[in-house]
Amino acid sequence: MWQQYLDDNHDRFFEEYLDLVRIPSISSLPEHMADVEKAAEWTATRLTAAGIENVEIMPTGGHPVVYGDWLHAGDDKPTLLIYAHFDVQPADPYELWDTPPFEPTIRDGRVYARGASDDKGGLVTPIFAVEALLQTTKKLPINIKFCLEGQEEIGSPQLPPFMAEHKEKFACDLVASADGLQWSETEPMLVVALKGLCAVEISVRGPKGDLHSGLHGGVIQNPLEALANIIASFRTTDGKIAVEGFFDEVVELTAEDREKIAAVPFDGPAYKDQLGVTDFYGEPDYTTRERNWARPTLEINGMWGGFQGDGTKTVLPSEAHAKVTCRLVANQDPHQIEQLLIDHIKKHAPVGVTVDVRAGRGVAYPFLMDSDHPANQIAAEVLTELYGQSPYFVRVGGSVPVIPMFQKELGADTINFGWTVGDENLHAPNEFFRLANFKRGMRGYCMLFERLATADLGNK
Amino acid sequence: MWQQYLDDNHDRFFEEYLDLVRIPSISSLPEHMADVEKAAEWTATRLTAAGIENVEIMPTGGHPVVYGDWLHAGDDKPTLLIYAHFDVQPADPYELWDTPPFEPTIRDGRVYARGASDDKGGLVTPIFAVEALLQTTKKLPINIKFCLEGQEEIGSPQLPPFMAEHKEKFACDLVASADGLQWSETEPMLVVALKGLCAVEISVRGPKGDLHSGLHGGVIQNPLEALANIIASFRTTDGKIAVEGFFDEVVELTAEDREKIAAVPFDGPAYKDQLGVTDFYGEPDYTTRERNWARPTLEINGMWGGFQGDGTKTVLPSEAHAKVTCRLVANQDPHQIEQLLIDHIKKHAPVGVTVDVRAGRGVAYPFLMDSDHPANQIAAEVLTELYGQSPYFVRVGGSVPVIPMFQKELGADTINFGWTVGDENLHAPNEFFRLANFKRGMRGYCMLFERLATADLGNK
Repeated sequence: MWQQYLDDNHDRFFEEYLDLVRIPSISSLPEHMADVEKAAEWTATRLTAAGIENVEIMPTGGHPVVYGDWLHAGDDKPTLLIYAHFDVQPADPYELWDTPPFEPTIRDGRVYARGASDDKGGLVTPIFAVEALLQTTKKLPINIKFCLEGQEEIGSPQLPPFMAEHKEKFACDLVASADGLQWSETEPMLVVALKGLCAVEISVRGPKGDLHSGLHGGVIQNPLEALANIIASFRTTDGKIAVEGFFDEVVELTAEDREKIAAVPFDGPAYKDQLGVTDFYGEPDYTTRERNWARPTLEINGMWGGFQGDGTKTVLPSEAHAKVTCRLVANQDPHQIEQLLIDHIKKHAPVGVTVDVRAGRGVAYPFLMDSDHPANQIAAEVLTELYGQSPYFVRVGGSVPVIPMFQKELGADTINFGWTVGDENLHAPNEFFRLANFKRGMRGYCMLFERLATADLGNK
Repeated sequence: MWQQYLDDNHDRFFEEYLDLVRIPSISSLPEHMADVEKAAEWTATRLTAAGIENVEIMPTGGHPVVYGDWLHAGDDKPTLLIYAHFDVQPADPYELWDTPPFEPTIRDGRVYARGASDDKGGLVTPIFAVEALLQTTKKLPINIKFCLEGQEEIGSPQLPPFMAEHKEKFACDLVASADGLQWSETEPMLVVALKGLCAVEISVRGPKGDLHSGLHGGVIQNPLEALANIIASFRTTDGKIAVEGFFDEVVELTAEDREKIAAVPFDGPAYKDQLGVTDFYGEPDYTTRERNWARPTLEINGMWGGFQGDGTKTVLPSEAHAKVTCRLVANQDPHQIEQLLIDHIKKHAPVGVTVDVRAGRGVAYPFLMDSDHPANQIAAEVLTELYGQSPYFVRVGGSVPVIPMFQKELGADTINFGWTVGDENLHAPNEFFRLANFKRGMRGYCMLFERLATADLGNK
């Protein structure tokens, strides 16, 4: 029934989606504040029109969050929170766009516009799915809440305190993120892990000022050399991170985990070409992809001190600095790892210099969800039906702070249920979204809602 | 006899010296080219007036050299080449001078002016000494040549090719540098060693561009970490330089050398305070002063790569760079040490990155002269008489390229025979020269000429 409704109303839904895409809701630019607000209003209005109740535009201190719910499925049914965002990246450089970024243009079965894929295509599909179900069955198979936000492209700075304040309102059994990628146009994926993040900055101070290397050579500890030794101490000669306690909380990969990772296509030579390196490098006993997806990393992001100009300056520098970040995996706690780094650096501080370590601002927690989680199994069934192929279980080396935030604040895992493909020029000129995925997305959400109705997500 | 002449003509000599000091012969500033020329002409005229023959202003391609000789002492007498320079440092910032830098002012037994001490006070003393001897004895006890130059303060760039071209003209048995320091107002010194210099620049290249540390973390060798490991490899954990072959040509200190060094006053706590460090650091088994004066050093002058701004940027940098110089001692060859550094760096280049090493422009050779050399013994006698205390035998951590150049091009050692004291604001506002040293210098050169007449400097 809902399938017929989706078909019958496809052109209207599509036009509505294009209306949203036309709003230049760039969250990072002050001159587009009103446009972000306008996109929030469009979203609230559209939720209400779909039959969602209690819709409100909630202030966060920054760009707003749009809430709405439909909670009449009964207490024995799970509550799903749907996450997406209505803000977009800036569109410059405008001259590199083939058609204007906020005038969506259809070519070759694709909609070209800023935000067409990230994330307005994702945002509308569950709303239209809700309308189709409510119009055809007068009810939804599960309880549904929406958390649609307007500051994702600037890092969602107000979202964690906002969510902590509104835990009750957003309480749910599961989150579905409509801000997610699929592996390719024809291959689906589910994301079961994201990395966390922490940062420290090291400052090594030696003599009061830069010294003449002749007059004072051989006399003091060189801060640059001291820093190089500290950095060299972070890893054993075979490439393993040597910070004491670093791996203590790491959830080790099982044989099954490693099989799932190995099942995902990986073209080593092509990847090397892409990066421009001759060899991969990293922790021993793990594959390149395992290191990238499922092992914590420690990276020097920047390092500097002394003379950087042309030619020679025979100076013993007064100071040396480095910036270090770690990407973390479950169950590493970013604050604890920060402390381990600080302890390690202090322990390896050479004689004759002062070493200060400062924790960076902002951390992210890692995320890990069992691929056998009932919600993943159901999502996998739906994706298999939609794509004709079962999804890859993927781990992501990067950090998506909202997902561990939902885990922390709401106690809910998040399934990846978005329709973007990585080649769609996200954050770049000529962003596009595939029309096939617009249809697939609406159908997918209807199927997901129906199948989750019988799932035990811990709500019983 | 000459002593009486010096006393009788003191005021005239002093006025002549002030005339030279009034010429703003700043070699680094194009607008003072004519002044450097004027100082050369003053010098040539004054040499001739003193009775020096064959005086000429010789072109070098840059600022000129003034040559002159008196070679009638006989073949059995040594030939001494006297070195000094008539150019000066810039005088800015002018507002920090108590009196104008090129209007010499006498206060408290000192002449305040740019160049008063470095090196016009040094330059005139042997000229006036020659005049005193020729006027009173009608001859000089030894053969004398002058090499007075105008580009010392810009590093004497044209001097090495100039000297190589005019080896015959400047051929001598010994050089006396009137561009030299004494330990203090009351304590003389002789310099028996200077350090050489060589430089390399390291560039480590990894991926084509900076990478996202989440998307590509754990995959590649980080160029900054690779560089830190290379730098850490330069030294053993106990502080000794670990570059293979680095010490092979080093002339080890004898027990007597170490005694001479230990005899020179050294106030460790005051020196630490001056530098602002809590501890000295360096090669084990040598004292701080031995390391500074008599042991080769390897120093990182600068190091950089990746993100240096405020906050956090989770980037894997594409490149990392470092600048390295070594101060060398006899008999290390700077070109050979450069090659050892290059070999070491290549050998320690980690997998997954490309490491380029480039030798820096310009090297300096080390200088070492036996403190028992007959010229040093004679100079020591003269200094002991002048100061009432025997000189310290000092080694210098810095490089003075002209001195090893004389050794290389003319096969002649150089004795330190200048009158500057380190506290005289060289290269700084309110430079001054002590009147007592003006007198002492003229007397000292007369005594040196007389005593060298009986020395065997290899000329026999």
